[in-house]
Amino acid sequence: MQASTLTATANVTGYFCLYLAFFMLLPMMVDLVAGNDDWQVFALSGLLVGGISLFVIVMTQGYTVRFSPRFGFCLLNALWISTSLVAALPLYFSSIELTLGEAVFEAVSGITTTGSTVIVGLETMPPGLLLWRSVTHWLGGIGVVAAGLLLLPFLNVGGMQFFKLESSGQTESPFPRFRQFSVALVSFYVAITALCTLSYIAAGMNTFEAVNHAMATVSTGGFSTRDSSMREFSDAVLIVGTVFMLLGAMPFAALIRAIVQRDLRSALDPQIPVLLSIVAIVSFVVCLLALEFVEGPRWSILIHAVFNVVSTITTTGFVSADYDTWGPLSIAIFFVLTFLGGCAGSTSGAIKTYRLMVLFEALRMTLRQMVRPHALTPMRYGDQSIDTRVFQSVVVFVGVYFAIFLLSTVAVAATGVDFMTSFTGAATALGNVGPGFGEIIGPAGTFQPLPEAAKWILSVTMLLGRLEVMAVLVMLSPSFWRNF
Amino acid sequence: MQASTLTATANVTGYFCLYLAFFMLLPMMVDLVAGNDDWQVFALSGLLVGGISLFVIVMTQGYTVRFSPRFGFCLLNALWISTSLVAALPLYFSSIELTLGEAVFEAVSGITTTGSTVIVGLETMPPGLLLWRSVTHWLGGIGVVAAGLLLLPFLNVGGMQFFKLESSGQTESPFPRFRQFSVALVSFYVAITALCTLSYIAAGMNTFEAVNHAMATVSTGGFSTRDSSMREFSDAVLIVGTVFMLLGAMPFAALIRAIVQRDLRSALDPQIPVLLSIVAIVSFVVCLLALEFVEGPRWSILIHAVFNVVSTITTTGFVSADYDTWGPLSIAIFFVLTFLGGCAGSTSGAIKTYRLMVLFEALRMTLRQMVRPHALTPMRYGDQSIDTRVFQSVVVFVGVYFAIFLLSTVAVAATGVDFMTSFTGAATALGNVGPGFGEIIGPAGTFQPLPEAAKWILSVTMLLGRLEVMAVLVMLSPSFWRNF
Repeated sequence: MQASTLTATANVTGYFCLYLAFFMLLPMMVDLVAGNDDWQVFALSGLLVGGISLFVIVMTQGYTVRFSPRFGFCLLNALWISTSLVAALPLYFSSIELTLGEAVFEAVSGITTTGSTVIVGLETMPPGLLLWRSVTHWLGGIGVVAAGLLLLPFLNVGGMQFFKLESSGQTESPFPRFRQFSVALVSFYVAITALCTLSYIAAGMNTFEAVNHAMATVSTGGFSTRDSSMREFSDAVLIVGTVFMLLGAMPFAALIRAIVQRDLRSALDPQIPVLLSIVAIVSFVVCLLALEFVEGPRWSILIHAVFNVVSTITTTGFVSADYDTWGPLSIAIFFVLTFLGGCAGSTSGAIKTYRLMVLFEALRMTLRQMVRPHALTPMRYGDQSIDTRVFQSVVVFVGVYFAIFLLSTVAVAATGVDFMTSFTGAATALGNVGPGFGEIIGPAGTFQPLPEAAKWILSVTMLLGRLEVMAVLVMLSPSFWRNF
Repeated sequence: MQASTLTATANVTGYFCLYLAFFMLLPMMVDLVAGNDDWQVFALSGLLVGGISLFVIVMTQGYTVRFSPRFGFCLLNALWISTSLVAALPLYFSSIELTLGEAVFEAVSGITTTGSTVIVGLETMPPGLLLWRSVTHWLGGIGVVAAGLLLLPFLNVGGMQFFKLESSGQTESPFPRFRQFSVALVSFYVAITALCTLSYIAAGMNTFEAVNHAMATVSTGGFSTRDSSMREFSDAVLIVGTVFMLLGAMPFAALIRAIVQRDLRSALDPQIPVLLSIVAIVSFVVCLLALEFVEGPRWSILIHAVFNVVSTITTTGFVSADYDTWGPLSIAIFFVLTFLGGCAGSTSGAIKTYRLMVLFEALRMTLRQMVRPHALTPMRYGDQSIDTRVFQSVVVFVGVYFAIFLLSTVAVAATGVDFMTSFTGAATALGNVGPGFGEIIGPAGTFQPLPEAAKWILSVTMLLGRLEVMAVLVMLSPSFWRNF
């Protein structure tokens, strides 16, 4: 069985790397049109990756594999690691001369839709490279939604078993109606990206910037085409950004169901009102703080406050203002937002609204049991009860999330990076958010000045966060490899 | 029932405040002998508190109350809040002129065995006040062990139900053999305090300093009689301190059982080897870091490394060296230690070894179930299996612990305190450790410069940490007051 699982993993991974090679044609054409020599890098990278992928696909053909948790975990890890490495290839060989660690960091940051960057001088960069960064976001975004809906629920990762699509309710395999749902998902994703692009153009962006920012918005990624991120754009652009970042943080399955069934009630995931309430309350407080520190029309300050709050809680990471200069309370609030995340089943990262709700319900239950030890009341999520295993998965996830955050902090600090940068860097990487705090990686900075080792550590942390931590840890547990 | 529960709570609390009033005689006599006018403050505070306590005791006499979780929670909260306020009284009226918030902060820091101080110039302070601070530590230390062994296990707080004393195994009431165990506990506590005092004297401290530091050591408190904490003492003193801080962080019930039964095997609580292993490994790493930054004999540097690691992980908070100048990795490590804590059933605070072990076992279990979804294996702690409810209590505790940490950070930052101070101040207060990080509250600083509001917020945070968070939150839950 070992052989067939690994063969199947290699085969599927080969296909995805092949798709990624095809996507390299986009930046190639852009650079060709722009008369930039980097088109050759994309052409060669595409040929190289395409060739190797085809070879792998052919060599591993004809496998038969029954879906098993092991296969699922191998696949998840192989897909994210290999696509990250493939995405790093053109960055590494491009004219901007990144180190290997920097190229991998940038690619991982793209594929995991984190949006932290090690590149300074984006305005002068070849357009193909800018587009490639955005493409990695966009593909990483739909990848994580697909994995969250089609794979994670069958792998008991972090309570995601709760989100088995109704259509595949009784079976243990993720494949029934897989195709049908995939088509709907891709259509929906392309549609909102197009809508976002048009809205950005209407709000005043040029087409190239609109396409790039749209890809980075709906994927809650956060790469910009400018060093200043969203600072130089109009209020109208920020409003468009806010709407589509929120859309990217919504549970896609519920939205798609609502569209397919033409029934808005299907979209009523209990996470949505909770997320929107948090956004509203926190934005209000942040706006009050900003009013103290920023000059200008109040309306515009409110727009900036909402934009940056939404950008952080959805784990996008665009920045439109230096919220770290709005007093320590603002820093503390934005730091806490780094951990929250949008809805489960969306493109956003971090702990996610669903898990916060389960934790809160568990707290309520536990407090009730402390008063009435013999009362038996099931935990509830919306109108459903929460199974003990789901609860266990969720709380272990949250505990491990904080443990990894602390360990990653220690690891980054071990490279000589100051403490503030280490722990906010670890938090923002694990949550796939983007900016950290402090003078180096704060909203106005980049990850460029960090030592090479810190970039590698944060790359691993981003991948851990993106794969819901547990899906990586399981590969390190002895029971995974026993009787493989 | 409401009336009788509250009456009983007031009655028991009255007795404990009366005891505290008696303990005010100690600093009174010391100040009288030293010819310091502050003896009058202690005399009057003692009379005042004694009088009010007697009045309350008399007014609430003759109650009958059956033990219930509600009574337990009322009692826990009432005891810690009222003794903190009583302890603050002589500090507030003393010659050192603290504000109300400072007096309460110092008293709460004493009673909760945190050891953060708002007083600068300890060397010139009246000896009675120094002794009073140490006494609050000492009483707070035995108080929390007693509560942890006799009360919390019956209240399902944070998985402490696991630690029901064997002698009271089958019953739901904490009172059988209550008296017998209490006598053993007090004897043991007095004995190790005396032993620690003598050891400190043998190592070169004068008697007054030895008594004070012994009380702050075995209670894992951390108040010193010097602004420089333990910096000016000899290596011998540090070794004594290390041994007795570790002793204070051991599970007292297991140690007492071993002494009573004259059988060392009874002391083999599974937490002990885990805690000692963490101490050994972390000390080794910290020692390597210190060797880079500190001049001097290696042996002495090792002693300092071990001392400060033990001081932090046991949540004592003595400082013998500026470990925040040993590079960012050292800061990151000490920051993480702030969360760990000693063994459950000891005087130390924070998350505690027991809960870390349960979390780790839950992680192992969850990973195993991810690979083999249909396998059923119970979680184990030592040679016992862990009940689902215990597991739930533990993980909810840890989740809530981090949530309160983040909320407290936000609250402190809202008073205008910089983010680093807010963040590490909240962590050290919640863990009842002592020093934070940064220029203000770091190992070389005090909490004196913080705004009054921040001192109140951190006082509440210390109490939350000491009462295992959940025991306070339960008082705020609607189900607590429904059908009281």
